[in-house]
Amino acid sequence: MSNIIRVGVLGFGGLGQAAARLLAPKSEMRLVAAADHKGYIYNPEGLDTQACISTYNQQGSVGHVPEYGVLSQTSIADLIANAQVDGFFLALPNLPNTFMADVTRQFIASGWQGVLVDALKRTSAMEQILSLKDEVKNAGITYMTGCGATPGLLTAAAAIAAQSYAEVHSVKITFGVGIANWEAYRATIREDIAHMPGYDVDKARAMSDAEVEALLDETNGIISLENMEHADDLMLELAGICSRDQVSVGGVVDTRNPKKPLSTNVQLTGRTFEGKIATHTFTLGDETSMAANVCGPAFGYLKTGVWLQKQGLTGIFTAADMMPQFVK
Amino acid sequence: MSNIIRVGVLGFGGLGQAAARLLAPKSEMRLVAAADHKGYIYNPEGLDTQACISTYNQQGSVGHVPEYGVLSQTSIADLIANAQVDGFFLALPNLPNTFMADVTRQFIASGWQGVLVDALKRTSAMEQILSLKDEVKNAGITYMTGCGATPGLLTAAAAIAAQSYAEVHSVKITFGVGIANWEAYRATIREDIAHMPGYDVDKARAMSDAEVEALLDETNGIISLENMEHADDLMLELAGICSRDQVSVGGVVDTRNPKKPLSTNVQLTGRTFEGKIATHTFTLGDETSMAANVCGPAFGYLKTGVWLQKQGLTGIFTAADMMPQFVK
Repeated sequence: MSNIIRVGVLGFGGLGQAAARLLAPKSEMRLVAAADHKGYIYNPEGLDTQACISTYNQQGSVGHVPEYGVLSQTSIADLIANAQVDGFFLALPNLPNTFMADVTRQFIASGWQGVLVDALKRTSAMEQILSLKDEVKNAGITYMTGCGATPGLLTAAAAIAAQSYAEVHSVKITFGVGIANWEAYRATIREDIAHMPGYDVDKARAMSDAEVEALLDETNGIISLENMEHADDLMLELAGICSRDQVSVGGVVDTRNPKKPLSTNVQLTGRTFEGKIATHTFTLGDETSMAANVCGPAFGYLKTGVWLQKQGLTGIFTAADMMPQFVK
Repeated sequence: MSNIIRVGVLGFGGLGQAAARLLAPKSEMRLVAAADHKGYIYNPEGLDTQACISTYNQQGSVGHVPEYGVLSQTSIADLIANAQVDGFFLALPNLPNTFMADVTRQFIASGWQGVLVDALKRTSAMEQILSLKDEVKNAGITYMTGCGATPGLLTAAAAIAAQSYAEVHSVKITFGVGIANWEAYRATIREDIAHMPGYDVDKARAMSDAEVEALLDETNGIISLENMEHADDLMLELAGICSRDQVSVGGVVDTRNPKKPLSTNVQLTGRTFEGKIATHTFTLGDETSMAANVCGPAFGYLKTGVWLQKQGLTGIFTAADMMPQFVK
């Protein structure tokens, strides 16, 4: 085999499509497989990104892509069985909260060995993944969890920042997201709404597009979030950096403007061995999109996962445990 | 054996002493060995940090510490031969430029197996270490290089930041250092002077304390540095993030004021897969000292090195390759 990493993307909504576009010019990775809930596509020579995106957006599934697309109600299982893939990016909806763990069980049951990467958000979703720790390890799978933007990029930056301190007092993640058109991120926006006071996962998921639209009309398109359930807390606790209640995540999403309402950042405050209290800050450039900040790290961690696999290291790792590798 | 990592520190100047103080309250690591150019000390139960520091500062060597200290002209070789140590932090002077590689050859020749960590600065010094790659690997040593502040903490932050970008255009590291009294960091200040226009390593090293003092009088205690030879460039190139000429390091050292003249930061500019140009910034809290920002990461990477050793992974790794682990 060549050294090119053969990649699959599960889920072909906004995130999966961004992942496909990001991968297109890469020389070290090739997108060979994708699946959505109605079908899948596999071509060992590489997928036609544009054909996949336009077909999905017009007909609702990559299974409609001529020649290589296959319609299937068991698309993920069929793809696992038929495709030669080194690593999958699980660009699946975060809801229902059990979905990512259910898909992982499918991989374990199939006997497939390789790398899985998720960009999940909620602590409770990651807890379900972590409960599969031994099964994942024994199945020969290297699973990189929490490898998007937050958790992911910002969690890793916090883990680096912690190194200057003897004791970490707080990690505060504040994100700003601006999107021109929320309908391109239907699932993501519902996840955000689920964090709002008076809402939960089930209630947000049950909302029609019209109901989402009506809610956004009330807030002028702004979703403000505090104390969100984000797995950064669990990851930093697992890495021994601080306890989960010292980690807070909040942000502002503007669903009607691609300009970010504030600069996404993580601030880590601690005490040095000399007794000084200080704060390190990692700030993302405003021009970087959610897609770039989620998908870039996801494939960086996928590359790390492939390295770990080659060393015989299977099991579950988080973005706070491993350095992402740069994908050319 | 217990799970406590047994640590040795080679070099007991400002950096080695800070390392000893930083380690004192740790439960996961125990400082059991130290050496300077006139002697060494080893106690498997742990060193008396205060006794080591005051003895070194008063008598010039930890070899004078009662009971456990040993005076020796071959202190490093003797310590390697006599001590049970899992990992050494090479807190040695960066000058002469070949020193770190020479010490590494001593470790290789001795048959010792364990973890070595350096916080070296210059690209040329790291090139010498990297030339020992195969010997280090075959000797069963896991060597973590460039694991201080810069290179180290800031290089790792840059490697994380790169994940949002398809292409990295520049990495700009700017540090501010404030020290109340330069005489506590005689070797470090000479290294800084060696980067000034009209100076080089040999010239700076040959300066008497009075000559350093006279130079600092001319600049009101300020050393301004641009385009410094720092191994961040080599590390980011090796990690495939950018070419070394895209990395620049500069800074301002105030030798008469513990307040930093500017906030130490790294800015990474690149292009996202969507074609946007942006800059991520990682900024260190001003209250964190050089000692905290160098020694904290060094032991974080030492912990990672111990993990790598347990997995059978020997050879040379840089701070841009691996995530440092948090040491409690």
